[in-house]
Amino acid sequence: MKGLVYVYTGNGKGKTTAAIGSAIRAMGHGKRAVIIQFLKKGEYGEKKSSFLEIYQFGREQFVVKPTEIDYKLAEEALKFAADILKQRPFLLVLDEVNVAVSMGLIGVDDVIELVKNRDETNIILTGRNAPHEFIELADLVTDMRKIKHPFDGGTEAREGLEY
Amino acid sequence: MKGLVYVYTGNGKGKTTAAIGSAIRAMGHGKRAVIIQFLKKGEYGEKKSSFLEIYQFGREQFVVKPTEIDYKLAEEALKFAADILKQRPFLLVLDEVNVAVSMGLIGVDDVIELVKNRDETNIILTGRNAPHEFIELADLVTDMRKIKHPFDGGTEAREGLEY
Repeated sequence: MKGLVYVYTGNGKGKTTAAIGSAIRAMGHGKRAVIIQFLKKGEYGEKKSSFLEIYQFGREQFVVKPTEIDYKLAEEALKFAADILKQRPFLLVLDEVNVAVSMGLIGVDDVIELVKNRDETNIILTGRNAPHEFIELADLVTDMRKIKHPFDGGTEAREGLEY
Repeated sequence: MKGLVYVYTGNGKGKTTAAIGSAIRAMGHGKRAVIIQFLKKGEYGEKKSSFLEIYQFGREQFVVKPTEIDYKLAEEALKFAADILKQRPFLLVLDEVNVAVSMGLIGVDDVIELVKNRDETNIILTGRNAPHEFIELADLVTDMRKIKHPFDGGTEAREGLEY
């Protein structure tokens, strides 16, 4: 049975956490889930948790204008994802890959090629600004729209909730 | 510091999984997260996983027209939530509580009262049709909008992904 492709996009909170929750759900059924994070590096709660298989390819700084290292890391992440895919996990999460593509760090076609080679592996693509090619290819797309966000009111990010 | 209130609503996939992911993130930082599920009972992946503290108050059947037992279970869930809240976990998830309220199983005011007594506990309320009182009270609201869903194309729910 061909794996499904999910896209979680939009400007609201919940994209990465929904992908993490999906990984936990899969693992609860005894299946392997692998999370690869683009553009992120740091002691996020999901990284510190001992039960997730999670790999980070990013810098600790937030990327505004990409530099050579950002291109290199994104390419490494994609190559690593292709290697993991060969092991046929039940679920492969490419966290923030939509952003990596929309910033031009990796090509949309490279991701599409990877996704088309998924066989039975289910794939979740997260991040704002999902390219329309991903939307067309996906079986499921949720647009996570911000109605309210505490940062709007000046509240600072809280450990355990925002990261 | 007063806890934050998050609402995940909308007709798209990702509400419950985002709440589960938030619990994992909090736990990764060594904090306690408790998930209470309204209207659900069954071997969902999140229930089978050994690392979440999760309690279910529902029937295995999907509730279309509520009966006496559904009112009773929802009331029990709310009472249990109030007891857990006294233990001051970092995060308390009331999964599908929006649906329980919109079906009239419990009163919106009862939930509001609970939420107002949260002190430092962060609370996540999930489910479609969040009442406007929850939206007003919340610090963060994400509307998870369905753009595409595999069931639309006749695909059946898959273990590890949909439950």
